[in-house]
Amino acid sequence: MATTLKDVAREANVAVETVSRVLNNRGYISEKTRKKVNEAMEKLAYHPNTVARTLSKGRADAIGVIVPHIVHPYFAQMISEIEKVAAGKNLSVFISSSAGNNEREKQILELCENSQLAGVLLFSSNVRPEQVKAINIPVVTIERFIEGGTSCVLCDNYAGGSIAAEHLIKKGCKHLIMLGSVDRNAMPADEREDGFRDVCSANGVSVNIIHNGMESFQNMEYHKYIEKALKENPETDGVFCSSDIIAAQTIQVCKKLGMDIPGRIKIIGFDDTMIAGNTTPMITTIHQPITEMAELGVDMILRENNGQVVPEKNILKVSLVERETT
Amino acid sequence: MATTLKDVAREANVAVETVSRVLNNRGYISEKTRKKVNEAMEKLAYHPNTVARTLSKGRADAIGVIVPHIVHPYFAQMISEIEKVAAGKNLSVFISSSAGNNEREKQILELCENSQLAGVLLFSSNVRPEQVKAINIPVVTIERFIEGGTSCVLCDNYAGGSIAAEHLIKKGCKHLIMLGSVDRNAMPADEREDGFRDVCSANGVSVNIIHNGMESFQNMEYHKYIEKALKENPETDGVFCSSDIIAAQTIQVCKKLGMDIPGRIKIIGFDDTMIAGNTTPMITTIHQPITEMAELGVDMILRENNGQVVPEKNILKVSLVERETT
Repeated sequence: MATTLKDVAREANVAVETVSRVLNNRGYISEKTRKKVNEAMEKLAYHPNTVARTLSKGRADAIGVIVPHIVHPYFAQMISEIEKVAAGKNLSVFISSSAGNNEREKQILELCENSQLAGVLLFSSNVRPEQVKAINIPVVTIERFIEGGTSCVLCDNYAGGSIAAEHLIKKGCKHLIMLGSVDRNAMPADEREDGFRDVCSANGVSVNIIHNGMESFQNMEYHKYIEKALKENPETDGVFCSSDIIAAQTIQVCKKLGMDIPGRIKIIGFDDTMIAGNTTPMITTIHQPITEMAELGVDMILRENNGQVVPEKNILKVSLVERETT
Repeated sequence: MATTLKDVAREANVAVETVSRVLNNRGYISEKTRKKVNEAMEKLAYHPNTVARTLSKGRADAIGVIVPHIVHPYFAQMISEIEKVAAGKNLSVFISSSAGNNEREKQILELCENSQLAGVLLFSSNVRPEQVKAINIPVVTIERFIEGGTSCVLCDNYAGGSIAAEHLIKKGCKHLIMLGSVDRNAMPADEREDGFRDVCSANGVSVNIIHNGMESFQNMEYHKYIEKALKENPETDGVFCSSDIIAAQTIQVCKKLGMDIPGRIKIIGFDDTMIAGNTTPMITTIHQPITEMAELGVDMILRENNGQVVPEKNILKVSLVERETT
């Protein structure tokens, strides 16, 4: 027979309500009583049933994370940081991949709601505002913005694009292209594009933004697209890639085409994920403050749970990390 | 007020027990009744409370995954595959990183038990057999074996090491080293080491296994260790790395030391993760059947839940993927 709250109360010689208060860290309890209850729980090997506690508290000690992709190093690192932050706050993390499918995202959001999770971090803007609003737990989007939908955490993508252009121009590039930007309003790369283009224009440097579909993003396969872009723009001497994965594959394509990096052509990535330090040459990139973004996202969920109002847009700074490709 | 089972039963003009049977897919229900109940649920926008259902069923539709590391591409890919398999079976996935800490692993295992998860996939052998046995839900280890502890899914690490040695020898290597093997009994790289050494011995090829600590594994930083190994073994013309990450960094160190790949030195990795195809040159590696391992792990948990006996060791085949480093 499993040990119950009642058994613990009897052993500690206190009321059941007192044991419950110790467990939920609620109300005043003297150190002496707390010690007695803890000792009784230890003696009886009492494990509070998490499911029953969720029912009584009305909220699980868990958050949901919905990403389009788990293998992509950006999301792997985000999930890792979120898990660390959550563990420090005794929150479990429930992870789901939506593959960018709207119907699936809606289903997962509803599942999170029905599981009474404390909230959801959503890396997607596919869900319609009214769909997010129908969810009765806090939803915070990261690197995605749902107009009129919910609060979000973003890195300063416009500044990221500007810094990338400034760096390539400072290094002497005259003919720039940007790779990896996708359809408007779907992805954060859009503002990176604006920042990149504006700085190029201000400096009289030619710029060509070469768009791409969502398919490459899901399967992380960009080689043909990159080769086509480089062949159609043979004068290119600087490439801004909207992720480190694209930058890694641009290195491969340049090598195949016999273009020396950084002598003949310079490459800058975005994200500053694990892969940027593991390629040859290593990738100069724009650092996203992934740790801070994860911390802020979890914190916003907790604040919303406490009835606090959180800002709609929370934008964090990016920075340049210079390595070997520029 | 939230809609309850009772409301649905009244609307559909059936017993509460009937609604419950439809929800849990239990017992015989005529198509007509099922349709009536589903329509009533839709009309009343009834969302079954997952937490309450778990309490009544005694088991959550979720599995736990405990990894030492989330950013490491091997674990990121494993998590991704597990999530895909689980989603196909309507199982949610809880993810936890233990950073290889035994105490933390024990706590997470207990949390999974208290949350009444259907089972746990554990990527660690730090937990002692008696600790695993004390957990009252199925625990399956992947790429780790706890002697007398629980069932496991492994890839054929011995064959992996053998294939790596055979390939390097076939390509003409005479002086081999292996990088990345850690303390005995902790990691699967041990059997890779045995297979590698045995084939080298059988072919009269010199072999030096250079061990390494757990710290590099956690922070994915191997450059100094690799450089030291190559400098202390200057005749080396073939390197077997126990992960693709180590292989990626070996490429970087060889470039720094002016050693041409694959002309002067050949490199083979292990895992066949995302990074192997994104380095320059791309990494020849031993493919682990990650998808199949994830499928088998989830399947074993479900079979144990159904009271079926599962084999203690389940070993899956590996294969060579030849790219550009050999």
